[in-house]
Amino acid sequence: MSSSLKERIRIADVFSKNNGEKVLIAGWIEAVRIIGGVIFIVLRDRSGKVQAVIKKNIDEKLFNEASELGSEDVVAIKGEVKEAKTSLGDREIVVEKLYTISRATKPVPIVPEDWEKTNINVRLDWRFLDLRATRNRLIFVVTDEAVNALREFYRSNGFIEVFTPKIVSEATEGGAEVFPVIYFDKPAFLAQSPQLYKQMMMAAGFERVFEVGPAYRAEKHHTNRHLTEYESVDIEMSFIDSHEDVMKMVENAVIYSIKKVNEKYGSYIKQYFPRIPEIPSNVPRITLREAHKLLENKGFKQPDPNDLDTEGERLLGEIMEKEYGSQLFFVTEYSWLYRPFYTMKKPEEPSLTRSFDLIYRGTEIVSGSQREHRADVLENQIKEKGLNVKNFEFFIKFFRYGMPPHGGAGLGLERLVQMMLGLKNIREVRLLPRDPERLSP
Amino acid sequence: MSSSLKERIRIADVFSKNNGEKVLIAGWIEAVRIIGGVIFIVLRDRSGKVQAVIKKNIDEKLFNEASELGSEDVVAIKGEVKEAKTSLGDREIVVEKLYTISRATKPVPIVPEDWEKTNINVRLDWRFLDLRATRNRLIFVVTDEAVNALREFYRSNGFIEVFTPKIVSEATEGGAEVFPVIYFDKPAFLAQSPQLYKQMMMAAGFERVFEVGPAYRAEKHHTNRHLTEYESVDIEMSFIDSHEDVMKMVENAVIYSIKKVNEKYGSYIKQYFPRIPEIPSNVPRITLREAHKLLENKGFKQPDPNDLDTEGERLLGEIMEKEYGSQLFFVTEYSWLYRPFYTMKKPEEPSLTRSFDLIYRGTEIVSGSQREHRADVLENQIKEKGLNVKNFEFFIKFFRYGMPPHGGAGLGLERLVQMMLGLKNIREVRLLPRDPERLSP
Repeated sequence: MSSSLKERIRIADVFSKNNGEKVLIAGWIEAVRIIGGVIFIVLRDRSGKVQAVIKKNIDEKLFNEASELGSEDVVAIKGEVKEAKTSLGDREIVVEKLYTISRATKPVPIVPEDWEKTNINVRLDWRFLDLRATRNRLIFVVTDEAVNALREFYRSNGFIEVFTPKIVSEATEGGAEVFPVIYFDKPAFLAQSPQLYKQMMMAAGFERVFEVGPAYRAEKHHTNRHLTEYESVDIEMSFIDSHEDVMKMVENAVIYSIKKVNEKYGSYIKQYFPRIPEIPSNVPRITLREAHKLLENKGFKQPDPNDLDTEGERLLGEIMEKEYGSQLFFVTEYSWLYRPFYTMKKPEEPSLTRSFDLIYRGTEIVSGSQREHRADVLENQIKEKGLNVKNFEFFIKFFRYGMPPHGGAGLGLERLVQMMLGLKNIREVRLLPRDPERLSP
Repeated sequence: MSSSLKERIRIADVFSKNNGEKVLIAGWIEAVRIIGGVIFIVLRDRSGKVQAVIKKNIDEKLFNEASELGSEDVVAIKGEVKEAKTSLGDREIVVEKLYTISRATKPVPIVPEDWEKTNINVRLDWRFLDLRATRNRLIFVVTDEAVNALREFYRSNGFIEVFTPKIVSEATEGGAEVFPVIYFDKPAFLAQSPQLYKQMMMAAGFERVFEVGPAYRAEKHHTNRHLTEYESVDIEMSFIDSHEDVMKMVENAVIYSIKKVNEKYGSYIKQYFPRIPEIPSNVPRITLREAHKLLENKGFKQPDPNDLDTEGERLLGEIMEKEYGSQLFFVTEYSWLYRPFYTMKKPEEPSLTRSFDLIYRGTEIVSGSQREHRADVLENQIKEKGLNVKNFEFFIKFFRYGMPPHGGAGLGLERLVQMMLGLKNIREVRLLPRDPERLSP
């Protein structure tokens, strides 16, 4: 095009321009309608949509040019702002020049704004088109705000951001559900979490660290809340008295994140999503034992007295919201049976642990604990879990040369946003989700 | 311990306390010296170091307890602040209570503050001890600031942060140097860069995105500037006129990052590192052709007229700093021969490209370009590079349904910090570096 795109303004800013002002806008055509001698174009950029008008009796060449255009073509438009009553607002553009930048092959496989009628798998196959829908893009604008609010909170509380390896020589959590990597001639795995490394940073004297990075679980889950690759927001902090210190930190971080999302995007979210992220006034703490009682009182008996399953979490979420007015709450003191080897046991009752989950709208979004920092106790716990101490010798080493009491937590970023917006399927919250069936695009 | 660590103050804050105030501090013992009836303990936390004193004639039990302690033990100390002249400052602590939290096995394999006398491989084997040295930890405090300044800059310029897959079904850059992953029953790879996905986000209408995430190169390099896993700070932006728009953005981001690091840590950096990150006053742009001439004028002929090798970059860095007073400069118009298939060619001279590298103190830290956004031209360029079009059909698809002109760049975070601090070996800037030989800890 002959004109520089530097003059371009955002479409949203057209609506604050005066009648008669000249502007350059660019974006994707959402629709072209020809009614008699008038062409109406709806142009979309990431800031909004506006109607542009071309009249045959004013510029026939331009009219003919525009009549060739169709949905999803990329164009730039120079024109005059005119006050007008349209469904998109009180301004439209009277087109003076049209620059065709990129034509879309027809037919376009999916119509972005029709995402609701489109199967999720087809949407993901054509994700770059699906994301052109305002509502779908908004999910990622919210994610950006949510994660940066978490970072801001942790940094202002003395945490520094670290980047730990995702290619590791041992399975972090001791499980078998890892993705193998061929690292030159050595066998390796994708890290299931930064757990062992963030604890290493406590041995290194960093005192407070956080990490935002991918985590990998080779689990053959086919649910609406699991991904094989997800973004984990992890923290670890030293010189704590107990897991309560970690809970307080996580609670405030999550509330801060919800607040920031609300402040910046609350009004948009209201337009597009079933739920808005309400700001919790209090975050109750109940033990696993109390959780079981609450469920039993409502007639729901958990199959395993030492566990809380997905359905249990969901029901508990309903109870806590209805009866205690809280969408966000902690369940504490999980059984040692189901917590990882590095968790500290409850001293007064060693079948339980100094652990917690944070549940938001019926789904676990954070899991954390105080860690066992005494090398000899840790070694025993590894044995107790039936793991091979040799494989963890590199880890136990961190504890043998001065290790402060510490604890931490991991938050699933996609789950946080999923629950904020009240979404059914976590795949909607990941740009390009990976699950047992999906490896592309 | 019987006392809560909540009362704990940072050691650095001891020096602003009044004579006689009671404090609780905790950290690692750097040294214990017994001189006659007095024990001197140097205690270190991440904020600083202070001397603590115990006199036998005042509390013999405490004296005996303390005499058992050694380097790298973790302790908490309750005591009284006393004005004193010590090598660590004008305050010391008269110990009243000592809580032993965690003892270090003796001998401790490496002495953190002796890092300079310790081989880099041994340092990395004992990284958690190595990082207890103030200077070594400072590298990661600077990294935290540097990366968050970049994020802040990009966000304030309308970029949103995205998270793209690191498990991919195709080699991003078309090369063979990838790490294979076994993804359930499917072959997959670790992403060499988020390149194809950030371009997809341009097709999705996000307009401006950035990502901070790991990137993988299975290259058998044994140099001081390569890692097989590194942190890549990537941007991509739409509706640009040319690569110049990307360069301007990257230039300002990098300068902002250097500024923020200087503001916050300049005085510390001066104490520990050979160079401080000077703030560039101007960032010159020279073409590859001009770069070759500058080198030839000094008697250095590059072996390949279409390339600039590592040694060439280094020498060019020296020339640009000495003669143009600039540690930071762009080299532009690289040969099409050595740039990836998605790079836009220079329209007036198609053997060259609309590309650039940003060189900082003689090392490339950023690489970028305008991308070819015309599907048919892109397809031809894939063929021209001898790549199989079928493997990139999923990528070309992004360009067939309306793609704006766009460009972007990738910055190596470790290299940026390495050059800021004037460090020889990039391994120092990665907490747990991976190279062809190293996969642990």
